[in-house]
Amino acid sequence: MEPRISIITLGVADLPRAIRFYRDGLGLKTTADDDADIAFFRTSGTCLALYPRDLLAEEVSPDLSADVPVFSGVTLAHVARTREEVDAVLALAEAAGGTIVKAAEVAFWGGYSGYFRDLDGHFWEVAWWQDWEFNSDGSLVIE
Amino acid sequence: MEPRISIITLGVADLPRAIRFYRDGLGLKTTADDDADIAFFRTSGTCLALYPRDLLAEEVSPDLSADVPVFSGVTLAHVARTREEVDAVLALAEAAGGTIVKAAEVAFWGGYSGYFRDLDGHFWEVAWWQDWEFNSDGSLVIE
Repeated sequence: MEPRISIITLGVADLPRAIRFYRDGLGLKTTADDDADIAFFRTSGTCLALYPRDLLAEEVSPDLSADVPVFSGVTLAHVARTREEVDAVLALAEAAGGTIVKAAEVAFWGGYSGYFRDLDGHFWEVAWWQDWEFNSDGSLVIE
Repeated sequence: MEPRISIITLGVADLPRAIRFYRDGLGLKTTADDDADIAFFRTSGTCLALYPRDLLAEEVSPDLSADVPVFSGVTLAHVARTREEVDAVLALAEAAGGTIVKAAEVAFWGGYSGYFRDLDGHFWEVAWWQDWEFNSDGSLVIE
Protein backbone atom coordinates (compact mmCIF):
# COMPACT_ATOMS: atom_id res chain seq x y z
CA MET A 1 0.00 0.00 0.00
CA GLU A 2 1.52 3.28 -1.05
CA PRO A 3 1.33 5.85 1.77
CA ARG A 4 -1.45 7.99 0.42
CA ILE A 5 -4.76 9.40 1.61
CA SER A 6 -6.32 10.55 -1.63
CA ILE A 7 -9.62 11.93 -0.40
CA ILE A 8 -11.19 12.85 2.94
CA THR A 9 -14.96 12.85 2.66
CA LEU A 10 -17.09 14.65 5.23
CA GLY A 11 -20.74 13.67 5.49
CA VAL A 12 -23.00 16.72 5.62
CA ALA A 13 -26.69 17.31 6.29
CA ASP A 14 -27.20 20.04 3.73
CA LEU A 15 -24.78 19.90 0.81
CA PRO A 16 -25.40 23.39 -0.65
CA ARG A 17 -24.98 24.89 2.84
CA ALA A 18 -21.74 22.98 3.39
CA ILE A 19 -20.43 23.99 -0.04
CA ARG A 20 -21.10 27.63 0.80
CA PHE A 21 -19.26 27.26 4.14
CA TYR A 22 -16.10 25.80 2.61
CA ARG A 23 -16.17 27.64 -0.73
CA ASP A 24 -17.52 31.05 0.14
CA GLY A 25 -16.71 31.14 3.85
CA LEU A 26 -13.28 29.57 4.01
CA GLY A 27 -12.37 30.35 0.42
CA LEU A 28 -11.42 26.83 -0.69
CA LYS A 29 -11.53 26.17 -4.41
CA THR A 30 -14.07 23.87 -6.04
CA THR A 31 -15.81 23.63 -9.36
CA ALA A 32 -18.99 22.52 -7.57
CA ASP A 33 -21.97 24.80 -7.74
CA ASP A 34 -24.85 24.85 -5.29
CA ASP A 35 -26.77 22.00 -6.89
CA ALA A 36 -23.82 19.61 -7.20
CA ASP A 37 -24.25 15.97 -6.10
CA ILE A 38 -20.80 15.95 -4.51
CA ALA A 39 -18.14 18.62 -4.07
CA PHE A 40 -14.39 18.14 -4.42
CA PHE A 41 -11.99 20.77 -3.12
CA ARG A 42 -8.40 20.78 -4.33
CA THR A 43 -6.03 21.01 -1.39
CA SER A 44 -2.34 20.27 -1.25
CA GLY A 45 -2.01 16.51 -1.29
CA THR A 46 -5.36 15.26 -0.11
CA CYS A 47 -8.64 16.18 -1.72
CA LEU A 48 -11.49 17.30 0.57
CA ALA A 49 -14.91 16.06 -0.48
CA LEU A 50 -18.38 16.90 0.82
CA TYR A 51 -21.22 14.43 0.33
CA PRO A 52 -24.68 14.04 1.91
CA ARG A 53 -24.26 12.18 5.17
CA ASP A 54 -27.14 9.73 4.60
CA LEU A 55 -25.84 8.81 1.15
CA LEU A 56 -22.31 8.41 2.53
CA ALA A 57 -23.52 6.02 5.23
CA GLU A 58 -25.54 4.07 2.65
CA GLU A 59 -22.57 3.95 0.30
CA VAL A 60 -20.38 2.34 2.96
CA SER A 61 -22.93 -0.14 4.29
CA PRO A 62 -26.73 -0.47 4.55
CA ASP A 63 -26.29 -1.18 8.27
CA LEU A 64 -24.90 2.23 9.15
CA SER A 65 -26.86 4.92 10.89
CA ALA A 66 -26.47 8.43 9.56
CA ASP A 67 -27.00 9.90 13.04
CA VAL A 68 -24.53 12.63 13.92
CA PRO A 69 -22.31 11.62 16.86
CA VAL A 70 -21.17 14.13 19.45
CA PHE A 71 -17.61 13.31 18.52
CA SER A 72 -16.64 11.49 15.37
CA GLY A 73 -13.22 10.53 16.71
CA VAL A 74 -11.57 12.27 13.77
CA THR A 75 -9.97 15.69 13.64
CA LEU A 76 -8.50 17.55 10.68
CA ALA A 77 -5.65 19.94 11.32
CA HIS A 78 -4.73 23.01 9.33
CA VAL A 79 -1.21 24.07 10.25
CA ALA A 80 -0.76 27.78 9.81
CA ARG A 81 2.49 29.51 8.88
CA THR A 82 2.38 32.00 11.75
CA ARG A 83 0.78 32.26 15.16
CA GLU A 84 -1.26 35.25 13.98
CA GLU A 85 -2.63 33.19 11.11
CA VAL A 86 -4.16 30.76 13.63
CA ASP A 87 -6.33 33.53 15.04
CA ALA A 88 -7.17 34.77 11.55
CA VAL A 89 -8.31 31.35 10.29
CA LEU A 90 -10.41 30.74 13.42
CA ALA A 91 -12.04 34.15 12.97
CA LEU A 92 -12.72 33.33 9.32
CA ALA A 93 -14.36 30.03 10.27
CA GLU A 94 -16.54 31.73 12.87
CA ALA A 95 -17.56 34.45 10.43
CA ALA A 96 -18.55 31.71 7.98
CA GLY A 97 -20.91 30.15 10.53
CA GLY A 98 -18.58 27.67 12.24
CA THR A 99 -18.37 27.37 16.02
CA ILE A 100 -15.23 27.98 18.02
CA VAL A 101 -15.02 25.07 20.48
CA LYS A 102 -11.59 25.97 21.83
CA ALA A 103 -10.13 29.41 21.49
CA ALA A 104 -6.49 29.38 20.44
CA GLU A 105 -4.09 28.97 23.34
CA VAL A 106 -0.60 27.75 24.02
CA ALA A 107 -0.89 23.96 23.97
CA PHE A 108 0.78 21.50 26.34
CA TRP A 109 3.08 20.39 23.51
CA GLY A 110 4.34 23.92 22.96
CA GLY A 111 2.37 25.03 19.93
CA TYR A 112 -0.52 27.50 19.60
CA SER A 113 -3.78 25.80 18.79
CA GLY A 114 -7.55 26.19 18.67
CA TYR A 115 -10.51 24.21 17.33
CA PHE A 116 -13.64 25.00 15.39
CA ARG A 117 -16.62 22.83 14.40
CA ASP A 118 -17.99 23.14 10.90
CA LEU A 119 -21.74 23.24 10.25
CA ASP A 120 -21.99 19.45 10.51
CA GLY A 121 -19.95 18.98 13.66
CA HIS A 122 -16.64 18.06 12.02
CA PHE A 123 -13.70 19.27 14.08
CA TRP A 124 -10.82 21.27 12.66
CA GLU A 125 -7.73 22.20 14.62
CA VAL A 126 -5.90 25.32 13.53
CA ALA A 127 -2.38 25.27 14.88
CA TRP A 128 1.09 26.74 14.62
CA TRP A 129 4.34 25.61 16.16
CA GLN A 130 7.77 27.12 15.64
CA ASP A 131 9.34 23.67 15.28
CA TRP A 132 7.13 22.60 12.38
CA GLU A 133 8.65 22.92 8.93
CA PHE A 134 6.87 22.90 5.60
CA ASN A 135 7.81 21.11 2.41
CA SER A 136 7.62 23.16 -0.79
CA ASP A 137 4.10 21.83 -1.49
CA GLY A 138 2.87 23.07 1.87
CA SER A 139 2.81 19.66 3.54
CA LEU A 140 4.49 19.20 6.91
CA VAL A 141 7.96 17.73 7.19
CA ILE A 142 7.34 14.38 8.91
CA GLU A 143 10.34 12.20 9.68
CA MET B 1 -6.86 30.18 4.42
CA GLU B 2 -4.47 28.25 2.24
CA PRO B 3 -6.07 25.05 0.94
CA ARG B 4 -4.30 22.57 3.12
CA ILE B 5 -5.21 19.68 5.41
CA SER B 6 -1.96 19.10 7.25
CA ILE B 7 -2.91 16.23 9.54
CA ILE B 8 -5.78 13.79 9.88
CA THR B 9 -5.92 12.41 13.41
CA LEU B 10 -7.81 9.22 14.18
CA GLY B 11 -8.79 8.58 17.78
CA VAL B 12 -7.99 5.00 18.83
CA ALA B 13 -8.78 2.86 21.86
CA ASP B 14 -5.40 1.11 22.08
CA LEU B 15 -2.54 3.09 20.60
CA PRO B 16 0.08 0.30 20.38
CA ARG B 17 -2.48 -1.95 18.69
CA ALA B 18 -3.40 0.78 16.21
CA ILE B 19 0.28 1.51 15.50
CA ARG B 20 0.85 -2.16 14.73
CA PHE B 21 -2.15 -2.21 12.39
CA TYR B 22 -1.00 0.76 10.33
CA ARG B 23 2.77 0.22 10.59
CA ASP B 24 3.15 -3.53 10.52
CA GLY B 25 -0.14 -4.49 8.87
CA LEU B 26 -0.53 -1.84 6.18
CA GLY B 27 3.16 -1.01 5.98
CA LEU B 28 2.91 2.74 6.49
CA LYS B 29 6.05 4.48 7.70
CA THR B 30 6.39 5.99 11.16
CA THR B 31 9.16 6.61 13.61
CA ALA B 32 6.76 5.78 16.48
CA ASP B 33 7.48 2.69 18.50
CA ASP B 34 4.94 0.75 20.54
CA ASP B 35 5.12 3.01 23.59
CA ALA B 36 4.78 6.31 21.74
CA ASP B 37 2.33 8.94 23.01
CA ILE B 38 1.23 9.77 19.47
CA ALA B 39 2.15 8.34 16.09
CA PHE B 40 2.67 10.31 12.89
CA PHE B 41 2.75 8.54 9.53
CA ARG B 42 4.21 10.31 6.54
CA THR B 43 1.89 10.08 3.59
CA SER B 44 1.86 12.10 0.41
CA GLY B 45 0.46 15.49 1.31
CA THR B 46 -1.45 14.92 4.52
CA CYS B 47 0.06 13.37 7.62
CA LEU B 48 -1.91 10.57 9.30
CA ALA B 49 -1.79 10.66 13.10
CA LEU B 50 -3.03 8.17 15.69
CA TYR B 51 -3.84 9.38 19.20
CA PRO B 52 -5.79 7.89 22.10
CA ARG B 53 -9.46 8.60 21.53
CA ASP B 54 -10.18 9.78 25.09
CA LEU B 55 -7.24 12.20 25.01
CA LEU B 56 -8.29 13.46 21.58
CA ALA B 57 -11.81 14.19 22.81
CA GLU B 58 -10.42 15.93 25.90
CA GLU B 59 -8.00 17.92 23.77
CA VAL B 60 -10.84 19.31 21.66
CA SER B 61 -13.27 20.04 24.46
CA PRO B 62 -14.03 18.79 27.99
CA ASP B 63 -17.67 18.39 26.93
CA LEU B 64 -17.02 15.71 24.35
CA SER B 65 -17.79 12.05 24.86
CA ALA B 66 -15.17 9.59 23.70
CA ASP B 67 -17.85 6.99 22.87
CA VAL B 68 -17.34 5.32 19.53
CA PRO B 69 -20.19 6.11 17.13
CA VAL B 70 -21.47 3.54 14.65
CA PHE B 71 -20.57 5.92 11.87
CA SER B 72 -18.26 8.87 12.31
CA GLY B 73 -19.50 10.59 9.18
CA VAL B 74 -15.96 10.68 7.81
CA THR B 75 -14.35 8.36 5.28
CA LEU B 76 -10.77 8.28 4.05
CA ALA B 77 -10.12 7.09 0.53
CA HIS B 78 -7.02 5.43 -0.82
CA VAL B 79 -7.08 5.58 -4.60
CA ALA B 80 -5.19 2.68 -6.11
CA ARG B 81 -3.33 2.73 -9.40
CA THR B 82 -5.01 -0.38 -10.77
CA ARG B 83 -8.21 -2.32 -10.22
CA GLU B 84 -6.17 -5.31 -9.01
CA GLU B 85 -4.50 -3.15 -6.40
CA VAL B 86 -7.91 -2.43 -4.85
CA ASP B 87 -8.36 -6.12 -4.07
CA ALA B 88 -4.77 -6.40 -2.85
CA VAL B 89 -5.07 -3.48 -0.42
CA LEU B 90 -8.39 -4.75 0.94
CA ALA B 91 -6.83 -8.20 1.47
CA LEU B 92 -3.88 -6.57 3.22
CA ALA B 93 -6.19 -4.66 5.54
CA GLU B 94 -8.15 -7.80 6.37
CA ALA B 95 -4.97 -9.77 7.04
CA ALA B 96 -3.89 -6.98 9.40
CA GLY B 97 -7.08 -7.36 11.44
CA GLY B 98 -9.34 -4.87 9.70
CA THR B 99 -12.91 -5.73 8.69
CA ILE B 100 -14.18 -5.69 5.12
CA VAL B 101 -17.52 -3.90 5.27
CA LYS B 102 -18.05 -3.78 1.52
CA ALA B 103 -16.25 -6.09 -0.84
CA ALA B 104 -14.93 -4.32 -3.89
CA GLU B 105 -17.46 -3.97 -6.66
CA VAL B 106 -18.20 -1.79 -9.64
CA ALA B 107 -19.63 1.41 -8.14
CA PHE B 108 -22.58 3.39 -9.47
CA TRP B 109 -20.19 6.15 -10.55
CA GLY B 110 -18.18 3.76 -12.71
CA GLY B 111 -15.19 3.01 -10.51
CA TYR B 112 -14.25 -0.12 -8.58
CA SER B 113 -14.50 0.36 -4.84
CA GLY B 114 -14.65 -1.40 -1.49
CA TYR B 115 -14.51 -0.40 2.17
CA PHE B 116 -12.75 -1.66 5.27
CA ARG B 117 -12.99 -0.61 8.93
CA ASP B 118 -9.83 -0.31 10.93
CA LEU B 119 -9.58 -1.64 14.48
CA ASP B 120 -11.32 1.47 15.84
CA GLY B 121 -14.15 1.66 13.37
CA HIS B 122 -12.66 4.25 11.03
CA PHE B 123 -13.77 3.69 7.46
CA TRP B 124 -11.39 3.51 4.52
CA GLU B 125 -12.49 3.28 0.93
CA VAL B 126 -10.09 1.64 -1.49
CA ALA B 127 -10.98 2.59 -5.03
CA TRP B 128 -9.80 2.75 -8.61
CA TRP B 129 -11.31 4.48 -11.60
CA GLN B 130 -9.90 4.66 -15.10
CA ASP B 131 -10.74 8.36 -15.36
CA TRP B 132 -8.74 9.37 -12.30
CA GLU B 133 -5.29 10.80 -12.96
CA PHE B 134 -2.43 11.20 -10.53
CA ASN B 135 -0.09 14.13 -10.03
CA SER B 136 3.61 13.31 -9.75
CA ASP B 137 3.37 13.33 -5.94
CA GLY B 138 0.64 10.69 -6.01
CA SER B 139 -2.21 13.09 -5.28
CA LEU B 140 -5.30 13.07 -7.47
CA VAL B 141 -5.76 15.58 -10.24
CA ILE B 142 -8.71 17.68 -9.03
CA GLU B 143 -9.97 20.45 -11.27
